[in-house]
Amino acid sequence: MESREYKVTGMSCGHCEMSVREEVGEIPGVESIEVSAKEGRLVVSCSESVADNTVIAAVEEAGYSATRG
Amino acid sequence: MESREYKVTGMSCGHCEMSVREEVGEIPGVESIEVSAKEGRLVVSCSESVADNTVIAAVEEAGYSATRG
Repeated sequence: MESREYKVTGMSCGHCEMSVREEVGEIPGVESIEVSAKEGRLVVSCSESVADNTVIAAVEEAGYSATRG
Repeated sequence: MESREYKVTGMSCGHCEMSVREEVGEIPGVESIEVSAKEGRLVVSCSESVADNTVIAAVEEAGYSATRG
């Protein structure tokens, strides 16, 4: 289990946070999620087997952009 | 059928617009809805029997504030 931080651009409100939370939460191996629209920040606790690109793709699926940060 | 305009504060994105659209769309007698987060504006086409307070309460239910404007 590890904790990773991503910068996320485009979120503006709690609905946006919820969208990101839902998409990232569907990734197998993701244990917990913190997300802040205000800070443009996503923190994911997950198993080492989860690829960064999988997290980034989930954020994009929700309609936003992410980079490992 | 008449068209009414309301000022809505607090909406920030398309998710917010969707929330307002859903709540206001449940009001019997509402025919069509235009909503803009950017302009803070809601236009409702509805029968004369729909009370302003009903529309305003639906917007509040969605989590925002509205005034007839």
